[in-house]
Amino acid sequence: MRIAIDAMGGDHAPNLIVKGALDAAAQWPDIQLILVGDSAAIEPLIQGNLPSNVKIEHAEEIIGPDEEPVKAVRRKKRSSMVVAGQLVREGQADAMISAGNTGALMTTGLLVVGRMEGIERPALAQLIPTKNGVNVMALDLGANMDAKPEQLVQYAQLGSIYRSKVDGLSNPRVGLLNVGTEERKGNELTKAAYDLLEASSLNFIGNVESRDVLDHNCDVLVCDGFAGNIMLKAIEGTASSIMKTLKEAFNRSLLTKLAGAIMISGLRSFRKTMDYKEHGGALLLGVNGVVVKGHGSSDAVAIRNAIRQTRNALISNVTTSMANEISRK
Amino acid sequence: MRIAIDAMGGDHAPNLIVKGALDAAAQWPDIQLILVGDSAAIEPLIQGNLPSNVKIEHAEEIIGPDEEPVKAVRRKKRSSMVVAGQLVREGQADAMISAGNTGALMTTGLLVVGRMEGIERPALAQLIPTKNGVNVMALDLGANMDAKPEQLVQYAQLGSIYRSKVDGLSNPRVGLLNVGTEERKGNELTKAAYDLLEASSLNFIGNVESRDVLDHNCDVLVCDGFAGNIMLKAIEGTASSIMKTLKEAFNRSLLTKLAGAIMISGLRSFRKTMDYKEHGGALLLGVNGVVVKGHGSSDAVAIRNAIRQTRNALISNVTTSMANEISRK
Repeated sequence: MRIAIDAMGGDHAPNLIVKGALDAAAQWPDIQLILVGDSAAIEPLIQGNLPSNVKIEHAEEIIGPDEEPVKAVRRKKRSSMVVAGQLVREGQADAMISAGNTGALMTTGLLVVGRMEGIERPALAQLIPTKNGVNVMALDLGANMDAKPEQLVQYAQLGSIYRSKVDGLSNPRVGLLNVGTEERKGNELTKAAYDLLEASSLNFIGNVESRDVLDHNCDVLVCDGFAGNIMLKAIEGTASSIMKTLKEAFNRSLLTKLAGAIMISGLRSFRKTMDYKEHGGALLLGVNGVVVKGHGSSDAVAIRNAIRQTRNALISNVTTSMANEISRK
Repeated sequence: MRIAIDAMGGDHAPNLIVKGALDAAAQWPDIQLILVGDSAAIEPLIQGNLPSNVKIEHAEEIIGPDEEPVKAVRRKKRSSMVVAGQLVREGQADAMISAGNTGALMTTGLLVVGRMEGIERPALAQLIPTKNGVNVMALDLGANMDAKPEQLVQYAQLGSIYRSKVDGLSNPRVGLLNVGTEERKGNELTKAAYDLLEASSLNFIGNVESRDVLDHNCDVLVCDGFAGNIMLKAIEGTASSIMKTLKEAFNRSLLTKLAGAIMISGLRSFRKTMDYKEHGGALLLGVNGVVVKGHGSSDAVAIRNAIRQTRNALISNVTTSMANEISRK
């Protein structure tokens, strides 16, 4: 299992990216990590000898967070992100991880790593933590802004295979993100996708409203990239806003600080549930390899968790399963 | 100011609808309320004489919460909701309020009350409580599922006039709900709407992400009805899920209950901010009258607040301002 890591992508690159990678290399000796980026910047971060399952692949350019994705990927062929993608394309790595520019990573997946045969548009998928801890995989969360009904069905296939192979769910329940649970609800896209999903061999359970996502009433939630992105960021923004308000309420006086001290252990597990760092990264599904997007503000813990997630995907051989099932349709 | 109230719509109809209306009639003697519905069900709820500013308009039919909206409005001409709409259409009332079937109320607004001249599609608008308490008016939240760019500009006009006339904001800031803040982000719809909004005379501040809505960085947030509905329900669902988890954490032991008792006053104002009952209803903008949608589970407090909101809209004469400004374009 060879995983290429864009050591230069993300707010805390290269320091915490390299630290997280070294932690993971020590924890899982069965993986080989390739740190891609400016070797002059990476080498000083390694104390002592390079572990035997880590190597450095020099790449002199960097794609910045605000660069226009397609232009950047086309022009910066020697950037850490594109070189990592080339390693996957050329079979020198099985997976890549980047916490850099999201748009550029999706473009790298599409143009460098390459689409899976039979897939029209890859989808960005992420596990959303639910109350019971089982999570919902939502996709597409922003890879493809104007989706067609057939593409939503492909997302459902990709998500179902992932949940079944990687998470071991049998017959994962597929929901369609919609404005109501009744059959004829929605816009033109969801109405057409509903009919296609119902006619498919997937375990389609019907429409799901965004207010019920955290209740875990489906395992795979399908949506177009625009609506999915709006939903995900509304969940994240609301949770973070409430957590901030709570923190202020606990900090108001000595007495409320005492209450905070009493509550801290009870709220810690809750906070952990809501914390993106615990949940690894987002996945670009439908490309020829495992491509994982770490959060832009990923620290060493987040990177180690993204590597754990990538390792699980590689162990399950999910990309091969997807390629086989999609080409059979 | 004559306000027709659908006394039979909502989970707690007619009891709490009538109670809320009577409370409002006592609080604001300058309004006249028309309770529309089955008089045999309404009359027993009134203790003593009917207040001088309340009357009952008998309507024998009821539109149920699960009825198909267009069919129900067309067939049930004697339903409390449709009769309330007719009172507005015929000039016998200036506004209507219903906590009943949302789709049917939008249809009643469109087909019975009637579209404002120059408006292609009315929009459902709602104030979303923000951290600083100023609120964001988001629209459309579900009246029109497949919007055109020009319609998004009309929503922006309607919302701006409302915030300026009713809430007294000067030059309200208009944001476009999108997946990123940069100019060229989004789907075909938002890209086209962006250009139109920028060319308009509105105070357009650019794209706004759903994660930033609660930070109040705009006064009017424009979106298509599908995306808006997804965003609103994601905010509501996340807030309610977190509140439930918190409640459980406070109820875990005697000690955590003590912490809860310490925190209760600090959290009460926060809870109030998040409570739909405090914020009145949603408004159907772009029709010939003030049409307010109360939450399905509205109690007496929610109805009284919806009446307060309707009264404010009538005092500001916002419908006339909208009609004048839209026809000038």
